[in-house]
Amino acid sequence: MSRFGMNVKFTAKPGERDRLVDILLEGEDAMQAMEECELYIVNVSDTEPDVIWVTEVWSSPEAHRSSLDHQDTKASIARAMPLIAGVEPTIIRPVGGKGLRF
Amino acid sequence: MSRFGMNVKFTAKPGERDRLVDILLEGEDAMQAMEECELYIVNVSDTEPDVIWVTEVWSSPEAHRSSLDHQDTKASIARAMPLIAGVEPTIIRPVGGKGLRF
Repeated sequence: MSRFGMNVKFTAKPGERDRLVDILLEGEDAMQAMEECELYIVNVSDTEPDVIWVTEVWSSPEAHRSSLDHQDTKASIARAMPLIAGVEPTIIRPVGGKGLRF
Repeated sequence: MSRFGMNVKFTAKPGERDRLVDILLEGEDAMQAMEECELYIVNVSDTEPDVIWVTEVWSSPEAHRSSLDHQDTKASIARAMPLIAGVEPTIIRPVGGKGLRF
């Protein structure tokens, strides 16, 4: 089973980036406990003030998909939606490097 | 000192992706030993056969910059250049999540 990676570019509505960052980090405690979530990093841009990049690595595509079914995740998504102007996900597959166990 | 993150999209010349992946992973042993390199993941795309995404996190912008001055890095870059059709770096700043020590 190959890993599942995703870089997601969120564009927040003007002035809403920091509230959106807080919501995107709400699930952090749950993810720390979830072995199948290997990486979940929320990043901002110092040149694009409305942009957030989320870097995710999951043990499999199924692990990622089932995370979206959690009740808490659904609640966070519902709270985030009104703050979001755009979402551009890029699906990738990690093949090597430092920071994951290869 | 804030962390330095980067998502780099490489487009390889047709048929050269796997050779480019190998070169991008040459520095892995050195990076494993470098504390200031917190994350360096080479990813491929299952839908774009010439594309490679590299996810990097360094302890500071200076740590990243000085890594480019290493003799071995310079040699890898020189070998990679003829295989590369395009490079698009996106500079980001990690603010929280799982997989780094925040």
